[in-house]
Amino acid sequence: MEFEEKTVQRTEIYQGPIFKVVTDQVELPQGKGLAQRDLIFHNGAVAVIALTPEDRMILVKQYRKAIEATSYEIPAGKLELGENADPKAAALRELEEETGYRGRLELVYDFYSAIGFCNEKIKLYSASYLTKVDNPRPQDEDETLEIVEVTLEEARELLASGDICDAKTIMALQYWEAKMNK
Amino acid sequence: MEFEEKTVQRTEIYQGPIFKVVTDQVELPQGKGLAQRDLIFHNGAVAVIALTPEDRMILVKQYRKAIEATSYEIPAGKLELGENADPKAAALRELEEETGYRGRLELVYDFYSAIGFCNEKIKLYSASYLTKVDNPRPQDEDETLEIVEVTLEEARELLASGDICDAKTIMALQYWEAKMNK
Repeated sequence: MEFEEKTVQRTEIYQGPIFKVVTDQVELPQGKGLAQRDLIFHNGAVAVIALTPEDRMILVKQYRKAIEATSYEIPAGKLELGENADPKAAALRELEEETGYRGRLELVYDFYSAIGFCNEKIKLYSASYLTKVDNPRPQDEDETLEIVEVTLEEARELLASGDICDAKTIMALQYWEAKMNK
Repeated sequence: MEFEEKTVQRTEIYQGPIFKVVTDQVELPQGKGLAQRDLIFHNGAVAVIALTPEDRMILVKQYRKAIEATSYEIPAGKLELGENADPKAAALRELEEETGYRGRLELVYDFYSAIGFCNEKIKLYSASYLTKVDNPRPQDEDETLEIVEVTLEEARELLASGDICDAKTIMALQYWEAKMNK
């Protein structure tokens, strides 16, 4: 079966610091005619499941303008241009900047966050051998973060209350639950 | 601690059929000055974990223009305007349109797909009591879909090969794995 949608014309709508917006006119497969595809291009991101030796997950409370609310999320950050070659280093940097911890990272999942219209790919790592850094890298200037360490029970409560509400953090909780049941 | 970022000015960049793009100038908390937030507003979506009585998951193979590739995903669709009041009905419609199955739905997670810049919220349901519909609703005209039913082992292989590569479908696999381990 033929699936490909060939680009007939691409119009760039916006190029911003975080993402680019384009509108494609595409030719549908199987002679189905033309259609419009609005797309977001994003450089990708990294996120880290960080469990302390005391079996607590490190979460970051922060304000998210897109939803006009705070949420609790696993440490994460977008890849800067040029960082795609070494996403693990970027993940270590984010972990240290946001939480003051260093660790050893292993890739768990590599996934598109919103595949229907956006190419943002998130590399989700699990960190082990976590140690506190004496003089951690400073946080980004425009971020206001509060770091918390929660038990699995507390994490479940944050999920139930809606304070944990994003895909990557829920995936991290599912990963944690599965690990505890092994 | 103060977290809120107050909007000083909002500029609408683009209003398309699927999402709207705005640029906000915000006032950071704690007197940290101004910053720019580029945001995508989306009406939300629904997705369905559909396991057949034979313990196979129903997946939809489709082309995704944002990544210029096909992927295998759980049945899903965006909420049309006015459907927010009854997302479960929308999920049932998507399930029937895409797969020809009806079932009973239960909410599993309600999450933001890309909380850093987008307010798309996905309601992820689990379907039980699946039955084939004799004359299912037709698929959307601009969609080319292939329906497959896979075992857990086959799903794991699709994940390993990168054919399953999006957040909601990986969350569905995690849910399935957890269910099998109960």
